[in-house]
Amino acid sequence: MYVCMYVCIDQMVREALRDDRKVMMTKSSSIDLVTQTDQKVEQLIIKSVKEKFPTHRFIGEESVAAGEPCDLTDFPTWIIDPIDGTTNFVHAFPFVAVSIGFCVNKQCEFGVVYSCLQDQMFTARRGRGAFCNGEPLQVSTEEDISRSIIATEFGSNRETEAIDRMFSSLRKIVCIPVQGVRSAGSAAVNMCLVASGCVEAYYEIGIHVWDVAAGSLLVTEAGGVLMDVEGGVVDLMSRRIIAANNRTLAERIVKEIDSFSPTRDDAPLPKQ
Amino acid sequence: MYVCMYVCIDQMVREALRDDRKVMMTKSSSIDLVTQTDQKVEQLIIKSVKEKFPTHRFIGEESVAAGEPCDLTDFPTWIIDPIDGTTNFVHAFPFVAVSIGFCVNKQCEFGVVYSCLQDQMFTARRGRGAFCNGEPLQVSTEEDISRSIIATEFGSNRETEAIDRMFSSLRKIVCIPVQGVRSAGSAAVNMCLVASGCVEAYYEIGIHVWDVAAGSLLVTEAGGVLMDVEGGVVDLMSRRIIAANNRTLAERIVKEIDSFSPTRDDAPLPKQ
Repeated sequence: MYVCMYVCIDQMVREALRDDRKVMMTKSSSIDLVTQTDQKVEQLIIKSVKEKFPTHRFIGEESVAAGEPCDLTDFPTWIIDPIDGTTNFVHAFPFVAVSIGFCVNKQCEFGVVYSCLQDQMFTARRGRGAFCNGEPLQVSTEEDISRSIIATEFGSNRETEAIDRMFSSLRKIVCIPVQGVRSAGSAAVNMCLVASGCVEAYYEIGIHVWDVAAGSLLVTEAGGVLMDVEGGVVDLMSRRIIAANNRTLAERIVKEIDSFSPTRDDAPLPKQ
Repeated sequence: MYVCMYVCIDQMVREALRDDRKVMMTKSSSIDLVTQTDQKVEQLIIKSVKEKFPTHRFIGEESVAAGEPCDLTDFPTWIIDPIDGTTNFVHAFPFVAVSIGFCVNKQCEFGVVYSCLQDQMFTARRGRGAFCNGEPLQVSTEEDISRSIIATEFGSNRETEAIDRMFSSLRKIVCIPVQGVRSAGSAAVNMCLVASGCVEAYYEIGIHVWDVAAGSLLVTEAGGVLMDVEGGVVDLMSRRIIAANNRTLAERIVKEIDSFSPTRDDAPLPKQ
């Protein structure tokens, strides 16, 4: 019943994307950008959903940045990243995506990632498969990590401990050896690349729930698995994820990761 | 007079790309792949050039892998990478390029990079500018590295010293901090991203002359600069390169690189 909701997103986003690449302000650091488009697209999506489903809740990157709570309850909730890959967007680097996940009882019911510059609309509905522009997606069947491409990102955290662990993990993964490491600059796009079979796995510590909510359903509906970086069940609020084509590769990556725990997305807001 | 030569490449490559993604054999290591398409495309290009210019010379990735010499002399020489990003090609990762540079007196006269899955034809002719699908290219005007995206790759060298230096350099660059690091998996595409202004700079140690010959002209004709990783004049046979939007950024990157010297492309072949 909710699937029809994403029909208008395509045009909405293209129009918003056409004119604005001006950086408005920074968020957590100079590496974490936001543009007018981020804010405009998020408001457009929320407004159009609210018109049809006035009781639904929202978790949006820009709303949270503006101080709204980031709580995933059992209520129907839309999880929105209006521009995933804002740095890419500012630079016109070719991976920029709009990510919208929809959860009920904390479970993703459908997910949409629109990769704007590729004009690829990735869609998944729970139990119904994952698709790109209507074509069914299937993860890679590779079981040997030395024949695999792994995607990851350097994120925006430059604290020494995080950098130490990030580089230690990456070095160990490169030296397994894997066949290649790629950084597309968008978590949502990385999840789509796993779902499409173009990379075998993607891992990152530091992502937010809005980066991966939609992508997580795309990966599982394309036959892949999600795992925490320490090997347990993934928790989308924990800011840690492995998305892989199969359990073998996910568990192999777990072995090489020096994990750490960023502040959770649903941590209480600091008192003003 | 040589520009007309690349007109047929588009169709030739698309046909070759459509059917074959099977890995035939490995070259220097399990990370360095080659497919039937690599060999087929290179032979097609060489054959069609030879018909028109029987005295011209060639440096082709697959010919060199098969034991032919890799000497850049003053004679007119075509420098060919039939599939730059073979790992991407095998995995259908969206950056795969055909790269053809043409040099006379060791100077690049024109360069063509065809980014197959994006359907983007990048062309440059010395003194005449750089273009993508006919539209003129211009590097980024950014002078502040902390507002820059840097592209680099992990290559196929897994020797400890190379890995140590690669990770040390990358860590320092990440912590400048730069705004982002990207890995597209194709040197030629990275050079096109610099020429297009999507990333401010690309650096790598371990590339080959066929990966960057065409791209080097694209970058300079789009207003960018080339530099050795130690700051001197770039030597396309040295397997080291910085391609940047301007001298300020290139020199800033030089400061952070722990350089090393892979075996040159024009080193004498080991005796059999």
